[in-house]
Amino acid sequence: MQDSSKIALEEKLIPQLQFEKRGGLLPVIVQEYDSGQILMLGYANEEAFNYTLKSKKATFWSTSRNELWTKGETSGNYLQMKNIMVDCDQDAIIYQVELMGSGVCHTFDQQGENRKACFYRSYDIDEKKLKFIEGME
Amino acid sequence: MQDSSKIALEEKLIPQLQFEKRGGLLPVIVQEYDSGQILMLGYANEEAFNYTLKSKKATFWSTSRNELWTKGETSGNYLQMKNIMVDCDQDAIIYQVELMGSGVCHTFDQQGENRKACFYRSYDIDEKKLKFIEGME
Repeated sequence: MQDSSKIALEEKLIPQLQFEKRGGLLPVIVQEYDSGQILMLGYANEEAFNYTLKSKKATFWSTSRNELWTKGETSGNYLQMKNIMVDCDQDAIIYQVELMGSGVCHTFDQQGENRKACFYRSYDIDEKKLKFIEGME
Repeated sequence: MQDSSKIALEEKLIPQLQFEKRGGLLPVIVQEYDSGQILMLGYANEEAFNYTLKSKKATFWSTSRNELWTKGETSGNYLQMKNIMVDCDQDAIIYQVELMGSGVCHTFDQQGENRKACFYRSYDIDEKKLKFIEGME
């Protein structure tokens, strides 16, 4: 990459999201706006990103169903967009959201509620086993 | 996927990181352990993940140089591992780290310091332009 285009990408204000660089899909970190908690990781293609801008509801490309996926479209528990961030080389995105329902994860806790976040287990570095985060079993 | 293997993946404690599912590389969200700030997004293959476990220094697979990459190996500004989290279907990882140097990003702020995080710009949803986060210009 030439120096001028690298500077444009890293230091300028015109968005140039690098969908092509990553085969059409960029990773999207979903973070709760108020708490900073990381809720899930999804993927967006250009269509999903543009639909997110238009609808202000977090929208992804489902890599399992191969279709546009507005989180909460069946349950009504949308993720309301509060802010978007992009990284230096514009090939990773953060959706900062407000949760409309109890949780974003498709799995259920022991109370039968959708878990708030998909990241509910730690990987114990010494024991090489997973552990549930307290309150998310 | 059969129900039993889905339950094993989502609810059990034996790690089964799904490197193969994502072509050998899983996305790794790097988060500052104390503040919760998202610092960068990288990728890990099995070798990088195992080296992270062994060294307790955040290690990635560099997709630009195609090589194992322990963050800070040239500068000495390692990312000390504090905790690892995995998501429900074990195809995304969070490295929670303590920063050894001033910042993780290869770009520099106006004071000539490496920016703390690669996410230093917001994407303005209405204006469709990027904006620097205050203090990270």
